[in-house]
Amino acid sequence: MKSQIVTFLIKCPDQKGLVAKFTSFFYEEGFNIVSCQQYVNAAANRYYMRIRLDAADTTISKETLETKFEKIAKTLNCNWSAHYESEQQNVAIMVSHTSHCLYDLLERQREGDLDCNISLIISNHTKLKSIADMFDVPFYHLPITKETKKEQETQVIELLKKYQVDLIVMARYMQILSEEFINQYPERIINIHHSFLPAFQGANPYQRAYERGVKLIGATAHYATVDLDEGPIIEQDVERITHESTPKTLKRIGADVERLVLAKAVKSHLQHQIIVSDNRAIVFPETGE
Amino acid sequence: MKSQIVTFLIKCPDQKGLVAKFTSFFYEEGFNIVSCQQYVNAAANRYYMRIRLDAADTTISKETLETKFEKIAKTLNCNWSAHYESEQQNVAIMVSHTSHCLYDLLERQREGDLDCNISLIISNHTKLKSIADMFDVPFYHLPITKETKKEQETQVIELLKKYQVDLIVMARYMQILSEEFINQYPERIINIHHSFLPAFQGANPYQRAYERGVKLIGATAHYATVDLDEGPIIEQDVERITHESTPKTLKRIGADVERLVLAKAVKSHLQHQIIVSDNRAIVFPETGE
Amino acid sequence: MKSQIVTFLIKCPDQKGLVAKFTSFFYEEGFNIVSCQQYVNAAANRYYMRIRLDAADTTISKETLETKFEKIAKTLNCNWSAHYESEQQNVAIMVSHTSHCLYDLLERQREGDLDCNISLIISNHTKLKSIADMFDVPFYHLPITKETKKEQETQVIELLKKYQVDLIVMARYMQILSEEFINQYPERIINIHHSFLPAFQGANPYQRAYERGVKLIGATAHYATVDLDEGPIIEQDVERITHESTPKTLKRIGADVERLVLAKAVKSHLQHQIIVSDNRAIVFPETGE
Amino acid sequence: MKSQIVTFLIKCPDQKGLVAKFTSFFYEEGFNIVSCQQYVNAAANRYYMRIRLDAADTTISKETLETKFEKIAKTLNCNWSAHYESEQQNVAIMVSHTSHCLYDLLERQREGDLDCNISLIISNHTKLKSIADMFDVPFYHLPITKETKKEQETQVIELLKKYQVDLIVMARYMQILSEEFINQYPERIINIHHSFLPAFQGANPYQRAYERGVKLIGATAHYATVDLDEGPIIEQDVERITHESTPKTLKRIGADVERLVLAKAVKSHLQHQIIVSDNRAIVFPETGE
Repeated sequence: MKSQIVTFLIKCPDQKGLVAKFTSFFYEEGFNIVSCQQYVNAAANRYYMRIRLDAADTTISKETLETKFEKIAKTLNCNWSAHYESEQQNVAIMVSHTSHCLYDLLERQREGDLDCNISLIISNHTKLKSIADMFDVPFYHLPITKETKKEQETQVIELLKKYQVDLIVMARYMQILSEEFINQYPERIINIHHSFLPAFQGANPYQRAYERGVKLIGATAHYATVDLDEGPIIEQDVERITHESTPKTLKRIGADVERLVLAKAVKSHLQHQIIVSDNRAIVFPETGE
Repeated sequence: MKSQIVTFLIKCPDQKGLVAKFTSFFYEEGFNIVSCQQYVNAAANRYYMRIRLDAADTTISKETLETKFEKIAKTLNCNWSAHYESEQQNVAIMVSHTSHCLYDLLERQREGDLDCNISLIISNHTKLKSIADMFDVPFYHLPITKETKKEQETQVIELLKKYQVDLIVMARYMQILSEEFINQYPERIINIHHSFLPAFQGANPYQRAYERGVKLIGATAHYATVDLDEGPIIEQDVERITHESTPKTLKRIGADVERLVLAKAVKSHLQHQIIVSDNRAIVFPETGE
Repeated sequence: MKSQIVTFLIKCPDQKGLVAKFTSFFYEEGFNIVSCQQYVNAAANRYYMRIRLDAADTTISKETLETKFEKIAKTLNCNWSAHYESEQQNVAIMVSHTSHCLYDLLERQREGDLDCNISLIISNHTKLKSIADMFDVPFYHLPITKETKKEQETQVIELLKKYQVDLIVMARYMQILSEEFINQYPERIINIHHSFLPAFQGANPYQRAYERGVKLIGATAHYATVDLDEGPIIEQDVERITHESTPKTLKRIGADVERLVLAKAVKSHLQHQIIVSDNRAIVFPETGE
Repeated sequence: MKSQIVTFLIKCPDQKGLVAKFTSFFYEEGFNIVSCQQYVNAAANRYYMRIRLDAADTTISKETLETKFEKIAKTLNCNWSAHYESEQQNVAIMVSHTSHCLYDLLERQREGDLDCNISLIISNHTKLKSIADMFDVPFYHLPITKETKKEQETQVIELLKKYQVDLIVMARYMQILSEEFINQYPERIINIHHSFLPAFQGANPYQRAYERGVKLIGATAHYATVDLDEGPIIEQDVERITHESTPKTLKRIGADVERLVLAKAVKSHLQHQIIVSDNRAIVFPETGE
């Protein structure tokens, strides 16, 4: 394959000699191991690896590589995926009324901080179309009502297929996706929730945070699952507030936490730093280049 | 009264001219206003003030001051309290097995960072007696069982009365106080909960935090109320964790958050920085001396 | 004057009765005191107040108010300024190559989070013109060389005067302003420095942070003074890094700190929360609305 | 050797196949690899590894293991060290007047959070002897003057040798160690500096932080080198302050940062998480057990 970075994400039952076996395999195939990160969950006896390979010195084809690796994987009962730098991912952003996360993702992608295509923006409202226009990204307005929910989702899915979308980012999309929808994109839908989950699941977290009198507010980026706000948490952060903070100021302060948390989660996903296991997201830290 | 700092905590319905009226009163009585902090809850139309007075240049007696102030207070429908630097507060610490918060409070008091007497330590176990001995603080072992709960609490209350305790600090006391107990010490019992409330109320927060896969863990210091873990929040903080963190490491990392959060809350209480209203704690920031 | 919020910023020698005198004055003139914040620097015997007034119930004119207040101010040897909500401030943004702070300020202003006009953008390069166009803000390209520095600054100042600019934000403008320039805008030029000052003053802070092996990097927003990077600090924050962070990743991580720190500083200035004294910025916390 | 965890710290020039070679070696010797962390500094072409091995299933002796590993090490031009869980480290704490870091280290060790012996406490003052007594640790008072500095250090070194000290912690020891002293304990002396280095190197950092008007203060734990306050940084953290904070309050707020930063640095050292290279400390994150 052409010279590039290949990332393998591997999970399997823990057993002796795994690092040695995996690293020897890639070494013998002529790869240079750029970084090798592992996590052993001793309690669950599970093993996880993220390994990044430089293909500069090997002529092996993608197919051969995967076929050969699958042989080992089978014997070790591995679950794995391989990701090729040369295959850029397509992202769809879904929004409703709130603009800060949308701006943030569009900017980062435009400035080269997010290595992906932002293929389209889908909204159940027209309010944010002007922002899509500013950044020259196709904007689709698909309104939704109780009655039309099913068919709206069908339209959304058609668009996702048409644009061959790899990742869906719910950047403050204020609709609950149906089980059918979510099951079509396992670990490929990232949602930002405007609270420090599991605190304030559900609606109006800032109002409830104000009423509870918390001293910090937060945001949580997680993979969407059929259990609302209970998917694997990718990233969280908080900001200090005071008794002077009104629900309105909480919303403004929280917006800055949301945008950063969502951007970090999306970046971690795009860089293949995440392995999900037992509803927990193992997020390997970014390694220096 | 002797030269000292007097702190008034005031709450009343908001209305025009409050600052002017209060500050003029103290000014005319010969006090120098060291600091004057206020908070207006516009939505609830409530007004709150913390004012610190230097009594150096006045000869007014405590009684006259309070009688005169009560006259104004009545007309403005105020709820208020006055606190005199010369009257040092007595603190009781209640513990079970965990030592870090106990060490922390004893050290800070010994080093002069907490302006109070630590009059006694009460525990339902003997494990931490050696620490009480190290710091020469009376230690009372009052074991508790379902059957003896009522009478144990009676013994505790007798001790609190005997030592004229002003503030009770539950420094990881793993028992739920009865409604009767709590009602005798409104806003005078501070508890540390080892989670970022309202997340993980109740038992085993660290285990549940691990299972949920949160990326930050926290601690919350709050006034104890009859609704468990739902009292007014005084202070909270969090610490970052990773997928590598086990329940055991969470416990250790959390311990440092707990001790700091509890110490800050106790200090704020001792310095009369807190006014509680609608189950929210208004914590005025410390002012420089 | 029309119904609005008026903010007074006051500094003077400390003396008894100041709060009472000031608040009584405004109360008697029919203002409702929305918030009253003070700071006493006991060591320096200086007093500082920020007081926000609701003019809804008074018919007093701006002129009369200021004339009357000046009478008191004189007797107390006060230095003061009054700011009227109805008078929106004009902001100029100066940039070079780096886009993240520019995007951030333009977005916040467009979304109503920064109460000001962004009148123009000035750059010594053309690179960021497309962003100015996206947000429909006039963009002026004024290149600069050692030889043309003086005349370029003259052109800049002409533009600032033409647009009646109240605040200049150096959003990663990689030029040092001359003493003449700075002296024309005391406490009205905010600069963002990409380090945690006073660490890494001057050029290439991220490269130097990497070489020094610090574990946190930061950003500092300060008023520009003739002593480079030594002006009064308005806001600072930091982000954790690791040994894996390269100078390139530091730059990216730091960018998020810079944008937030600069936005907070600009907001504090626009809301008249800042009083400068002895090269220190007293930043009164935002009060709830 | 007896069943235990063995930790290897390895640094060498980067080259293809390193992970494979090292992990295969340990695997073939019958070790189970508990964790394997690496860092590649691409710019410097340097490779670093921390690998933790479970010796439960091997009967190899320490000597054989090290002799065999040295063979590989030579061929790869490695610099390495091996650390055995069964060999507990001896720590000396050096202090002057300030107690908070001393309390903190003694407590953590007493409670089992720091896996080491605290063999002795050395001070140039008697003030903290009572704390040493509380924790039953030998306390040596070795006063120092310009004239006696050389001989005092000789006495200190005799004590360090007598107690076979592995690590020296300067827990606010307000003396500068001589070059001779420091060179005897390379990367084995940890100092806590009460500022966010490189800001405020040298004396009175809090006073200078106050005068500069910074909005955050910090602390830095680093290995002592002959260049004062310029040794490899192990850990840093900061705390937010305000204009209300006086030098006295900075000192108190900073104390909590100092104690946590120092404790983390000492723990990282004791757990063999640190490799120093080019005056930068590579601190591998703690792995879950």
